[in-house]
Amino acid sequence: MDDKLFLMIPGPTPMPERALLAMAKAPIGHRSGEFAKIMAEVSENLKWLHQTASEVLMLSSSGTGALEAAIINACSPGDRVLVGANGKFGERWVEVAQAFGLDVEVIFAPYGQPLSTDAFKAALEADTDKTIKAVVVTHSESSTGVINDLETIVGYIRAHGEALSIVDAVTSLGATSVPVDAWGLDFVGSGSQKAYMIPPGLGFLAVSERGWAACERSTMPRYYFDLRKYRKALKKNNTPFTTPVNLVFALQTTLQMLRAEGLDALFARHARLRDATRAALRALGLALFNPDDHSASPAITAVVPPEGIACDKLRATLKKHYDIVIAGGQGEMEGQIVRIGHLGFVGERDVLTAIAALEGALRTLGYDGFTPGSGVAAASAVLFG
Amino acid sequence: MDDKLFLMIPGPTPMPERALLAMAKAPIGHRSGEFAKIMAEVSENLKWLHQTASEVLMLSSSGTGALEAAIINACSPGDRVLVGANGKFGERWVEVAQAFGLDVEVIFAPYGQPLSTDAFKAALEADTDKTIKAVVVTHSESSTGVINDLETIVGYIRAHGEALSIVDAVTSLGATSVPVDAWGLDFVGSGSQKAYMIPPGLGFLAVSERGWAACERSTMPRYYFDLRKYRKALKKNNTPFTTPVNLVFALQTTLQMLRAEGLDALFARHARLRDATRAALRALGLALFNPDDHSASPAITAVVPPEGIACDKLRATLKKHYDIVIAGGQGEMEGQIVRIGHLGFVGERDVLTAIAALEGALRTLGYDGFTPGSGVAAASAVLFG
Repeated sequence: MDDKLFLMIPGPTPMPERALLAMAKAPIGHRSGEFAKIMAEVSENLKWLHQTASEVLMLSSSGTGALEAAIINACSPGDRVLVGANGKFGERWVEVAQAFGLDVEVIFAPYGQPLSTDAFKAALEADTDKTIKAVVVTHSESSTGVINDLETIVGYIRAHGEALSIVDAVTSLGATSVPVDAWGLDFVGSGSQKAYMIPPGLGFLAVSERGWAACERSTMPRYYFDLRKYRKALKKNNTPFTTPVNLVFALQTTLQMLRAEGLDALFARHARLRDATRAALRALGLALFNPDDHSASPAITAVVPPEGIACDKLRATLKKHYDIVIAGGQGEMEGQIVRIGHLGFVGERDVLTAIAALEGALRTLGYDGFTPGSGVAAASAVLFG
Repeated sequence: MDDKLFLMIPGPTPMPERALLAMAKAPIGHRSGEFAKIMAEVSENLKWLHQTASEVLMLSSSGTGALEAAIINACSPGDRVLVGANGKFGERWVEVAQAFGLDVEVIFAPYGQPLSTDAFKAALEADTDKTIKAVVVTHSESSTGVINDLETIVGYIRAHGEALSIVDAVTSLGATSVPVDAWGLDFVGSGSQKAYMIPPGLGFLAVSERGWAACERSTMPRYYFDLRKYRKALKKNNTPFTTPVNLVFALQTTLQMLRAEGLDALFARHARLRDATRAALRALGLALFNPDDHSASPAITAVVPPEGIACDKLRATLKKHYDIVIAGGQGEMEGQIVRIGHLGFVGERDVLTAIAALEGALRTLGYDGFTPGSGVAAASAVLFG
């Protein structure tokens, strides 16, 4: 049907109607008292979502911009950094670090598997001269549906004592607990089109006091992404450069909704949707790209289509027959997996619907390795017992 | 009145209702065929607005981000650059160039006066060794209401033969003719919340073939703002990082409106609104901050309030009694001038209204140096003879 697409991709994610309408208000001046009032509320709610007492900065950029900002403010040219890479986003942070002349050491893991916490432990413990200045970890790797064990890795970073943690929390923040202060995270970057339930265009960055000291020390050339300017402006509930005010209108609304839901319920919902999705895919006899439940992302599930059914074909059928959009694989994962997003403004009904549609599409494409309704039943059992 | 504010600041500018509603559509995937189709149309219309056959890139950033991107892609560390500065924005590009380690030479002019074209001529002609790699010129200086003689300055840049032109067209693009190809401009940056009639959050950058060659040569570290990534993605009607899709929905609508109006009519409207505003302010006995009509910006007019009337007071009165927002001065101009924006979705009625309200506010604040109605009459005479 025309105009009926429903997004179940890792982002952009669906938006609540009230946030769409909030966004459709006439812009106001970004230097006005009215806007400062909105920013004050939004800032408080961002701190709440990040579980931090420190500032959470807002940038006019994508999530990649926010992560680049973290890397170039935390480090100076030539600094030694460890970067975890078990997917396209981890690999992107390797590229960013290299582009800015850092001395990059990569801890790889195969696609679909989590990063080895032991590898971080070994590398950090071996660094008795404390030459490692920062460690970049992707929390939820959107390209594969894996969530890395950030808490354990950050424990090793803290034990190291010198290295700062830089966390890509783009699809984890708001979908699972990322307690910035309790875990002692230094830079935590995310993007608006994920669990924030608004369109792309805003990047977020929580920075610790140790992170701020690094920003002051950094000799990396920077201006638009000089975080010190954002901190200074935020004290006046503002941003150094023009803010996308309409996206902030939408954000004000969605943060109120998230706050009303509550952190525990928010994270439990995402876990529930993930578990239901995985149970259903298993019931349909499909291979989860990441078979390990302990490292399954609460934001996105990657699955390998049955033998003989091309990823593109499956996605096209879901879209054409059911108006549901799921994602394909990125880079060398193209044609290997499809990815079902279940983060943000996604509820139980949406997962049931997606599974029901998936059953239909698989049947249409000739796969009959499951009892019709078994996927839906498995999801339903997880959701409501 | 509640919810009735009308913006007459240099940006954000007012938005057409249909663009607000276009923006309130549910997001779609930025890697989808549907989005590529929109991007293809938008790109064609951006080229039309820029009067160029080259690509016009779209960034998720403010206008400052777009200008920084131009500077760091055009130049390598240590490069000698000339920067014109006759206001806060020119000064900002000096700061950016310095932050990235360029060898910066500044051509200053007093606030409220245009840059001396002769100063550029002299500096460029004296550079017989061709060591100047780029010249940064702010076309419409939003902080003072001055438009610099870009065409003449760019003629000297072309005559130099080596230096690239980097133009801040943030409040000129779409408000006056900036014929990118005819004038041979190399990097032309602008921002969405100006004559584009949409909210802040998108930066635009037109790049010439000579500009692209410089991007390839540049050794400046960059990733998010590496323009080569944007050019590559644009060939597939996409962007390298997640696009603010909802802002693009709005942009699709406003570019259709601009195209329907036509370039000549668009530029004539802005010139007419500027001339009417200036005629009215003169009729009220106020001092234009830039008294020279030949260098008056088509986007914004700065004016000095009458002796004894504080800028803040005047702005507050206009807002409180008439729901009209005008801007104050920036930096050291604070308290010296107020600025009336007349760019974007602003028509004859809006200028008449603003002048009528200004008359009322001036009376309320005790200034009686004009015949009531004379400002409106002067504006009206310009608008409709």
